Amino acid sequence: MIDYPSKVLQEAVEAISSLPGVGARSALRLALHLLKQPEENIHHFAGAIDDLATKIHYCKECNMISDSDHCAICSDQKRDHDTICVVESVRDVMSIEATGQYQGVYHVLGGIISPINGIGPGDLAIDALVERLKRAASESQKPQTEVILALSGDVEGETTSFYIYRKIAGLAAKISTLARGLGFGDDLEYADSLTLGRSIVNRQEFRPQ
Amino acid sequence: MIDYPSKVLQEAVEAISSLPGVGARSALRLALHLLKQPEENIHHFAGAIDDLATKIHYCKECNMISDSDHCAICSDQKRDHDTICVVESVRDVMSIEATGQYQGVYHVLGGIISPINGIGPGDLAIDALVERLKRAASESQKPQTEVILALSGDVEGETTSFYIYRKIAGLAAKISTLARGLGFGDDLEYADSLTLGRSIVNRQEFRPQ
Repeated sequence: MIDYPSKVLQEAVEAISSLPGVGARSALRLALHLLKQPEENIHHFAGAIDDLATKIHYCKECNMISDSDHCAICSDQKRDHDTICVVESVRDVMSIEATGQYQGVYHVLGGIISPINGIGPGDLAIDALVERLKRAASESQKPQTEVILALSGDVEGETTSFYIYRKIAGLAAKISTLARGLGFGDDLEYADSLTLGRSIVNRQEFRPQ
Repeated sequence: MIDYPSKVLQEAVEAISSLPGVGARSALRLALHLLKQPEENIHHFAGAIDDLATKIHYCKECNMISDSDHCAICSDQKRDHDTICVVESVRDVMSIEATGQYQGVYHVLGGIISPINGIGPGDLAIDALVERLKRAASESQKPQTEVILALSGDVEGETTSFYIYRKIAGLAAKISTLARGLGFGDDLEYADSLTLGRSIVNRQEFRPQ
């Protein structure tokens, strides 16, 4: 229990320490650091945070955060709009974009089915995905979209993938998932046996380049 | 170089990563965490930070941060106003207060003399300390204040202590500094030799309790 010399300081520290992974001591250090900055820097900092509440839009097509109603990826006609990669979060889109290996579009669920955290299918953008696929299928007379289920490999991710798979079967031309196996450069000796086992079962043709 | 899906998100991430010890990846994680919160929580967070710029006062007596022009410690008549502990920062006051061992008042310099960081005596509340001691001495006809120089033990701290010592000599009845030596519970084997050497030179009478 820290005794604060100022209620204003205390409120700032409490706000900062509400962030995940930031304890009361770090929060105090950060608040005192901010306090030393020029007044306009503090206003700028607070304004940038406040804008998160009011100025962030969500793409009406893919649910990605954006500065307008249509994100840069969905608006890009050079991308392959017949390939939709379904991910849990904004961060996953950023991670995949950072690889530079994917030319399709995305669908951000905004979470994952997790009964223990009280998150059901209705809390996620699954219905929006179904509508999106129906719209695409009716435009081209038949399903021609590939859906990539790029969710995490744990129980919740698998559950969500399976739920979505049942919902969209018949609406997509192809439903795929991420390749799993040993990472590039991984040493067999240190691989966990589940990953190693799947790597053998799902072995791929050797193609020297 | 991260490619942000939104300028608003990018500005928030850049603001957060301006904090000491927070990298771009952590800042992104924190910004996305904030983004998931209800709008009013984000406003509250930003408001608590913004208040640091406008609602923090500094005690006119000791320069401690406060919600008014006189801090709780200086306003407390039960404290010993003839003992002034000179510290570098707000955090030092909080640390000493947390010990519960000190009943005097404080004087917060707001920094330490550090030529390498461009901080000279004029940037610190040293003149205010001199004025404060002169006032106290004239009120009681002669110097009767004890000044404790509680600055860090490095070169900058020693330099600042020495500078203040010369400035206030004659204005204080007594000028002391913190006891330095082995920490309580410290093992001799692991003590650095400078600390151990000083501990022997400045040995104290053994008083069984």
